[in-house]
Amino acid sequence: MTPAASLVFTTLLSHGPLTRTEVARRTKLSPAAVTKAVRPLMELGYLVEGVDEAARPAVGRPANPVWVDGGRALFIGIKITGDEIIAVLADLCCRIRESRHVRLTGREPEAVLPVITALVQELLTEADGFGVRVRGLGIAISGDVDREDGVVRYSPFLEWRDVPLAEIVGTATGLPVTVDNDVRALTVAEHWFGAGVGRSNFALVTVGAGIGCGLVVHGRVVSGAHGVAGEIGHLSLDPLGPLCHCGNRGCVEAIAADPAILHAVRAATGGQVTDMAEALKLAHSGDPGVRDIYARAGETIGKAIGFLANILGPELVIISGEGLAAYDLVSEGIRDAFAASAFGTAAQCDVMTRPLPFEEWARGAAATAIQSFMGSDTYEE
Amino acid sequence: MTPAASLVFTTLLSHGPLTRTEVARRTKLSPAAVTKAVRPLMELGYLVEGVDEAARPAVGRPANPVWVDGGRALFIGIKITGDEIIAVLADLCCRIRESRHVRLTGREPEAVLPVITALVQELLTEADGFGVRVRGLGIAISGDVDREDGVVRYSPFLEWRDVPLAEIVGTATGLPVTVDNDVRALTVAEHWFGAGVGRSNFALVTVGAGIGCGLVVHGRVVSGAHGVAGEIGHLSLDPLGPLCHCGNRGCVEAIAADPAILHAVRAATGGQVTDMAEALKLAHSGDPGVRDIYARAGETIGKAIGFLANILGPELVIISGEGLAAYDLVSEGIRDAFAASAFGTAAQCDVMTRPLPFEEWARGAAATAIQSFMGSDTYEE
Ligand SMILES: [Zn+2]
Ligand SMILES: [Zn+2]
Repeated sequence: MTPAASLVFTTLLSHGPLTRTEVARRTKLSPAAVTKAVRPLMELGYLVEGVDEAARPAVGRPANPVWVDGGRALFIGIKITGDEIIAVLADLCCRIRESRHVRLTGREPEAVLPVITALVQELLTEADGFGVRVRGLGIAISGDVDREDGVVRYSPFLEWRDVPLAEIVGTATGLPVTVDNDVRALTVAEHWFGAGVGRSNFALVTVGAGIGCGLVVHGRVVSGAHGVAGEIGHLSLDPLGPLCHCGNRGCVEAIAADPAILHAVRAATGGQVTDMAEALKLAHSGDPGVRDIYARAGETIGKAIGFLANILGPELVIISGEGLAAYDLVSEGIRDAFAASAFGTAAQCDVMTRPLPFEEWARGAAATAIQSFMGSDTYEE
Repeated sequence: MTPAASLVFTTLLSHGPLTRTEVARRTKLSPAAVTKAVRPLMELGYLVEGVDEAARPAVGRPANPVWVDGGRALFIGIKITGDEIIAVLADLCCRIRESRHVRLTGREPEAVLPVITALVQELLTEADGFGVRVRGLGIAISGDVDREDGVVRYSPFLEWRDVPLAEIVGTATGLPVTVDNDVRALTVAEHWFGAGVGRSNFALVTVGAGIGCGLVVHGRVVSGAHGVAGEIGHLSLDPLGPLCHCGNRGCVEAIAADPAILHAVRAATGGQVTDMAEALKLAHSGDPGVRDIYARAGETIGKAIGFLANILGPELVIISGEGLAAYDLVSEGIRDAFAASAFGTAAQCDVMTRPLPFEEWARGAAATAIQSFMGSDTYEE
């Protein structure tokens, strides 16, 4: 697909139905370029045109709305966490038709891959019921992922190194596979369907088992020249802070991610705390030491967002992730530290929270599969 | 000008002469779109076409090279520093035809504006000699600049606040005026003509009276939603470090900019040092305390570049500015701290130094005027 056709398609995904004139206005393409982009997509059935009698002008061509025909193709999206796999069957509009959760019994590729394959087979069977082909599979996984080569270079949570995931799963399932970093995949979904719709510069910060960040600049997700971008989790903000698994001290992740908070709470309370729910309960019961730990986590996240704002000047920062469960404990620290570290008008950036369940991450994975599909030549079957 | 025409024009500026086929390949536009973009620019004389008999194919249309006719229009670029004004007369290819330096006797607008107006008049007279009209004036100034409105919102070095510079100078000179942050303007010149040619993701870090940073992401300069971007100078990296004029402690600028180094050298030596040349001489003579101050400045800059790499993953970081005079004293610190703070493959980013005299900054200002001219409708006179 040409860049113009891709732009028209994603504009209709996010904002459709739209008339061609509205598409031209939003994409800043000429009406002729829009018509040229729309035609082959309509011939293939991915776009459909309605007849809006009310909008028919007295003279000239009718201003018919155009939209994406979601039912024309299906995609599977998979999010791998350290504990479970979440899979969704989504249509071409990235609406979720089916979803599945499976708990993992191990994190090594030998344990995870059969679960993925079985889930895909299950969803392919479901897809048969819709009478529409599954055209692609997206897999979202945390860590350093080379999307172009389909290789998981390093995923700290799973302790995977150089796993050619796209090739393995592609061979096992027969589907075209797109593998991407999970936060980048979620950022695509937020950009197309979430709080990032219509925004050309925003950041999505995820707080939980790790600290992640997806960036959209000039309307496109930033991937980094060497695959790394948005790594605010490893900004070492406190030279005297706790040691991080990356080797530095005082990284955001070593202070504000769930394992770091749990570790600090254990040290402060003498070790009787076993999970985040208990840590949260202690904080909510008023334990001052535990509340301080959450407050420090909030300050660290807020400072990191301030640094991000100073460097990129986004219009919006969305905070999400499992860590939102503790938002009442960290929000003040985030707000104050952001305000203190953001320079000048960078502080005018909106900072909002938005809960995004793991289905939404899997939907992001499906969105990357749609990107690959529409970017490839196979969509012209 | 359409986005496609603008892309074709800047591609020819950086890489021309090129055949239409080569332009299509580099811009990823269709040959038809390139021809459509080239035609009006040729009719207006901004592009010219050569006849390359050697490249004439046996059949079909000749593959004639096309290039920008530099002599077709002139522009003035001005860089304002705290001490002097540098002005250049540049052609449409942004080649410098004339340049001027004038020392400032004061920094307030009342002292600076007459100097700008007199310099512009002088260069307009020079332009008469070329028989070509000056089509725009670009002014580059450090600080928070609203390019769209042409207002200097806050320039710390000059202590200017909310100066409607474009309007004032436009009225005085009769020229269309573009005002931009000086590092962003220099980044445009580096992207079009310097080390950033052909790079779609790079950063330019300037070290000297302040610490600045210009960013190119997805092939375009980042401006920030509210005018602030690239503010690595105010990342507060050391919570216990010296107080910065922004109110935080341990900002990069408060440790590694010239005034901070001078202040620290004075404190270490008992106050007899009056300027950077003397500070440098002391360091080169082996004074360990002074060498430590430079080493710390280098580490701070290196860490900031590592943070930038973690967030954006650029392919290249260019270090420039007057501070390069001390590069032998800071290079080891920059290299080591960058390597320590860059996460994973972000460390693969190239880091290079490149001296860029103030004429080059003024040329960047002229480049922003060319941007405005080609983006406006006035180019069709
Ligand atoms: Zn780390
Ligand atoms: Zn500061």
